[in-house]
Amino acid sequence: MKIAIVFGGVSFEHEISIVSSIAMKDVLNNELIYLFLDASRDLYHIPTDIIKSKLFSTGEYKKFDKVFLQKGGFYKKGGLFSKDQTIHYDVVLNLSHGGDGEDGVLSSVLEFYNIPFVAPRTEACVVSSNKFLTKGYASSVGVNTLDYKYFTKGDKVVVDSFPAILKPVKLGSSIGVSIVKSQEELEYALDVAYEFDNAVIIEPFISGVKEYNLAGTKVNGEFRFSIIEEPQKAEFLDFDKKYLDFSRTSKALEVDLGEKLNEEIKESFRRLYNTLFEGSIIRCDFFVVNDTVYLNEINSIPGSMANYLFQDFSRLFNEVASTLPLKKYIPITYEYVNKIQATKGK
Amino acid sequence: MKIAIVFGGVSFEHEISIVSSIAMKDVLNNELIYLFLDASRDLYHIPTDIIKSKLFSTGEYKKFDKVFLQKGGFYKKGGLFSKDQTIHYDVVLNLSHGGDGEDGVLSSVLEFYNIPFVAPRTEACVVSSNKFLTKGYASSVGVNTLDYKYFTKGDKVVVDSFPAILKPVKLGSSIGVSIVKSQEELEYALDVAYEFDNAVIIEPFISGVKEYNLAGTKVNGEFRFSIIEEPQKAEFLDFDKKYLDFSRTSKALEVDLGEKLNEEIKESFRRLYNTLFEGSIIRCDFFVVNDTVYLNEINSIPGSMANYLFQDFSRLFNEVASTLPLKKYIPITYEYVNKIQATKGK
Repeated sequence: MKIAIVFGGVSFEHEISIVSSIAMKDVLNNELIYLFLDASRDLYHIPTDIIKSKLFSTGEYKKFDKVFLQKGGFYKKGGLFSKDQTIHYDVVLNLSHGGDGEDGVLSSVLEFYNIPFVAPRTEACVVSSNKFLTKGYASSVGVNTLDYKYFTKGDKVVVDSFPAILKPVKLGSSIGVSIVKSQEELEYALDVAYEFDNAVIIEPFISGVKEYNLAGTKVNGEFRFSIIEEPQKAEFLDFDKKYLDFSRTSKALEVDLGEKLNEEIKESFRRLYNTLFEGSIIRCDFFVVNDTVYLNEINSIPGSMANYLFQDFSRLFNEVASTLPLKKYIPITYEYVNKIQATKGK
Repeated sequence: MKIAIVFGGVSFEHEISIVSSIAMKDVLNNELIYLFLDASRDLYHIPTDIIKSKLFSTGEYKKFDKVFLQKGGFYKKGGLFSKDQTIHYDVVLNLSHGGDGEDGVLSSVLEFYNIPFVAPRTEACVVSSNKFLTKGYASSVGVNTLDYKYFTKGDKVVVDSFPAILKPVKLGSSIGVSIVKSQEELEYALDVAYEFDNAVIIEPFISGVKEYNLAGTKVNGEFRFSIIEEPQKAEFLDFDKKYLDFSRTSKALEVDLGEKLNEEIKESFRRLYNTLFEGSIIRCDFFVVNDTVYLNEINSIPGSMANYLFQDFSRLFNEVASTLPLKKYIPITYEYVNKIQATKGK
């Protein structure tokens, strides 16, 4: 199976998408094709044998072939007397973190052009990339989340107790996130967050809270879980530390929380993934507070695909890619147009 | 202002999108360009002076120019010695009802190519086109909805009391919806609904419930409301009746529910629209039960844009189109890639 990795994109996580994508060379046994989406949403085909992050920071990628989207796939424009050239692949891996990749835009574009891809479909992207919608969804499917308040720009913001954690609703990798210890710090933290988004959520900040990550997917209707990991972290992961995380390829250490909590974490994952996330490999990050499991966030396109949490990532990926969810067939008929024309006598 | 109407699309409401779009000729005072998305997602430019629904049911539309998407807009391919031709417009109106138009796919595609458009952005489409997500969202913003249960294919379905109304989560215009009066009818209704979707919600069916519709939008941060209408309806609107509704251009009759209920309906609209729906004109349908307002559904691209509910639709549309929400600027930097390269000594 030949995999075309689409990465980059208009996103605060543009850079880490590059790092994540390059890491795939070490963990996928497939032939890979690299399609880079730059800051202007131009696509370039980067040769797999020479790809490295420096090509992008220097702008050198622009010397490679430009790629265009059309029904069924990607192509390179021919010259005056040569035909357009189709790029051959079996499946696309959408590995653009943050905006474009995770907010549903890229998934929609791939769907629009009828391109098969591994990644959450548009709905799942929207639910997981907006922290406010994630909270509502988790609660609808019976998964706990920490209490929160939701504010949009211009709202009067009242915080009941400090410390609190303030997050723009739509960004990943801790961008624009602040821990607020007093009323004075609140105003500044709001200014920072509103630089990135026009809506925020505020949660109680629980110092030293235990976080556990579980990745997983479905193959033919059966859940496939990774190990549960307790990630190493500072007070909260800042961008630098998370960044290094995106190039991870060595195996993580499994943590055993006992049968009850292990199962609660898996059951929460199942409820969240359900049918919504079919076609994707995601990582859910949970808090455990007083023996109760709470969802922290859903990483719908996790750093380096959370490969380090799985026994045999390459095999799993290929299984997911060969059992992608099919769209329901929608028949287009003109039954009613005909009826109305008859009615109107047109 | 020149408006390009994109309509049709892969949707059970493909046909009514045609009817809605043709109705725009009677209600918008602008120069219009018609771009038809057919069942294969090919785009065609249909001349405005001769557009009629029969062109589509007969397949005659295929004789018109094919249109392609690229960064910044739409174009027609040139010949061997002629250049590609750009289609000129100021703003797009996404008027594809149901799938593609309302599920976020088309909005994402327009955003991807940097095309300004009137319609909900991807997030708002996803929230309003999925009844389960709408319920969760409404509850998160403090708007009442009727009690419901959510099931996905394979779940054991238990209904507490009859009659109940069973709906596929993702379709509009009453497609796949059944009123279920007994346990025996339930199985059949589930089969029908699962033909269209793999998830359903079941609500109590309240016979003779009063429904009220309110359309609205925001211009420069200020809400602009339509009149409130009590639509004429049968037990529930079936597809035929709804269909005729999509060609409405004559003014609706205002209903006055008294200051308290009028304001409650408007306040519910404000909470739902908030910042999520900026850039769109939507219609919210409410139930009133025992003097309490409940959201029934959000029509993110309402039939004929709910023009018949507004005093001066054309003027309002132009105001919305000239004050579209701007995407936050996302700077793409390579700060961290450079840092990592330094760390690695590469």
